[in-house]
Amino acid sequence: MLLQVALDGELQPSLDILAEVINHIDIAEVGTPLIFREGMYAVRTFKEYYPTLTVLADLKIMDAGEMEADIAFENGADIVTVLGVAADATIEGVIRSAQKYNRQVLVDMIEVPYPIGRGRELVKMGCDYICIHTAYDLVATGDSPLKTLKNVREEMPHAALAIAGGVKLETIDDIIPLDPQIVVVGGGITRADSPAAAAHALRERMPL
Amino acid sequence: MLLQVALDGELQPSLDILAEVINHIDIAEVGTPLIFREGMYAVRTFKEYYPTLTVLADLKIMDAGEMEADIAFENGADIVTVLGVAADATIEGVIRSAQKYNRQVLVDMIEVPYPIGRGRELVKMGCDYICIHTAYDLVATGDSPLKTLKNVREEMPHAALAIAGGVKLETIDDIIPLDPQIVVVGGGITRADSPAAAAHALRERMPL
Repeated sequence: MLLQVALDGELQPSLDILAEVINHIDIAEVGTPLIFREGMYAVRTFKEYYPTLTVLADLKIMDAGEMEADIAFENGADIVTVLGVAADATIEGVIRSAQKYNRQVLVDMIEVPYPIGRGRELVKMGCDYICIHTAYDLVATGDSPLKTLKNVREEMPHAALAIAGGVKLETIDDIIPLDPQIVVVGGGITRADSPAAAAHALRERMPL
Repeated sequence: MLLQVALDGELQPSLDILAEVINHIDIAEVGTPLIFREGMYAVRTFKEYYPTLTVLADLKIMDAGEMEADIAFENGADIVTVLGVAADATIEGVIRSAQKYNRQVLVDMIEVPYPIGRGRELVKMGCDYICIHTAYDLVATGDSPLKTLKNVREEMPHAALAIAGGVKLETIDDIIPLDPQIVVVGGGITRADSPAAAAHALRERMPL
């Protein structure tokens, strides 16, 4: 089980947090807001500081699959995200790009109306990870991705799943039995009093 | 009727094209791929070169409405985009941000399953423009936004609509009677032999 820290703030504070948590995490996410601010400079900077670190570029691709994924992979990203609500042709384009660069695709299932049916299609298409994700704006109103993860896991026992949206130390114990391949934590680490302690504690609860 | 040029390439070629077409266009779009490459630096550069130009930042927001829209508006964007498939709470956040900065919201209807029903909701929520948009990857297979624009216009005769996806000189005459507020043209201008001539010809066919 991999721990992914989502870095959504300004670049320098994100680098500061990354330095603190680097020994406890498996994947560093250049979050969508950070990409909006800095573009691929943020991806290149992460890779420059930590050449062997797995870096995910959270592009949430929706329109021009291969062309947009190429941008992230050319700049060193190891994993790129595409939206599950995107057209199949777009997702196929992202997969083509990933195959070209020998990298990976994570599908963000945010607002996908039928995640099990769509999840099956996406696995068949060749996506590497299916990420059950509740929008930031819905987490703010008390929503959580846990129930959807449970439902999807029941129907897709062998799929490589990920979970994102409000995950923190208080909720990790409910998530672990559902065996996601990747657990994405943003504010649960970055807004903790000690990001290093939070990441360390999360990592300790998770199986290797 | 406004002509928007979508600039999706690298920054310098985009600036070169913008310089060529500046007298024929109403809105310059910092396209999603350009934002992925350069982040807000591209928005700031457009505004620095052309302070009175209306600049749209095509963020296609899906997750953290107010916070992500704030990034674009703080950096000078006049219009920001949110996806029509986003959660209502996310779209409401984008509208809140726009009201705070006295700017505008364009909803990208890409892959919205029921554009008329959703369009009505979005207008009621206070979105400024409803953009009927066929994904780049579907335009490549022959699809077009024209029929959807026709259907939506019939049911929403007074809405401020926009159209995007494969629009060019050859198709503009079918679009004009449907009275979109904004016509978005990407490759139809940027990949023309003469972007200036293409933009000029499009602008001449469009009502003021």
